[in-house]
Amino acid sequence: MRYWEDVEPGATASFGSYLVTREEVVAFAEQYDPQPFHLSDEAAAQTYFGRLSASGWHTCAMTMRMLVDNMASEESAGLGSPGVDEIRWLKPVYPGDILRCESAVVDKSASRSRPDMGSFRSEITVLNQRDEPVLRMKSIGLIRRRPAE
Amino acid sequence: MRYWEDVEPGATASFGSYLVTREEVVAFAEQYDPQPFHLSDEAAAQTYFGRLSASGWHTCAMTMRMLVDNMASEESAGLGSPGVDEIRWLKPVYPGDILRCESAVVDKSASRSRPDMGSFRSEITVLNQRDEPVLRMKSIGLIRRRPAE
Repeated sequence: MRYWEDVEPGATASFGSYLVTREEVVAFAEQYDPQPFHLSDEAAAQTYFGRLSASGWHTCAMTMRMLVDNMASEESAGLGSPGVDEIRWLKPVYPGDILRCESAVVDKSASRSRPDMGSFRSEITVLNQRDEPVLRMKSIGLIRRRPAE
Repeated sequence: MRYWEDVEPGATASFGSYLVTREEVVAFAEQYDPQPFHLSDEAAAQTYFGRLSASGWHTCAMTMRMLVDNMASEESAGLGSPGVDEIRWLKPVYPGDILRCESAVVDKSASRSRPDMGSFRSEITVLNQRDEPVLRMKSIGLIRRRPAE
């Protein structure tokens, strides 16, 4: 089990491979972000995006899926997240793109009020198959401390 | 048409009514955030959440839907968003909750490099039917400037 004590500031990880399909881009946009440029190439052609691109929130959701799949590969005492800072959508994400993640632990701190838990901050960068960063964010994670023996 | 010139710092808005269903919570979690506490009441009972709750990213997506529906009510020269700051998931969102939004324009600035556009920052708070804030974030919006006559 991976506890707060095992989180090492500076540690990096590289993981994930998520194929972005046109069907999924349109389905997400229809439900959650029905702006014309996320629904059709024709509407997108008149914008900065040029052609159909994923909602930024869809990119966040696909990133979360890669994070969860990566977490599942080792048992972790994670307790969820209170938030995320500085999400930046750096480039459009297009159908056919293959996304991956690079993450780095920025720092960690013990909880003052909860001696059984701590938090850590990570910087997560999502890149496409051309190694272009498309999303960067700083996430906050909560995690259990290792129980006393 | 609503341009950058029409964005007033300090202006507030209240909009949206989004019924959170169990089916949608589970469908989103299965696809994007398959942590056990977002998939079943049984797994959630062993956590802080107590019972099945929505992925924080699902709450962001539902918020986006309310924002887009509200934008559609008046023609806007919006150009998308480069990012979001300080997302905070303040309370769990449960099936049966009805969410709504309150937003306030924090400030705005002209673009130095693009005389035809500007940006503005908004603070968005999502509340449930008990008027408890469940999500707060600061979004950045890009918008066209009013063309010269």
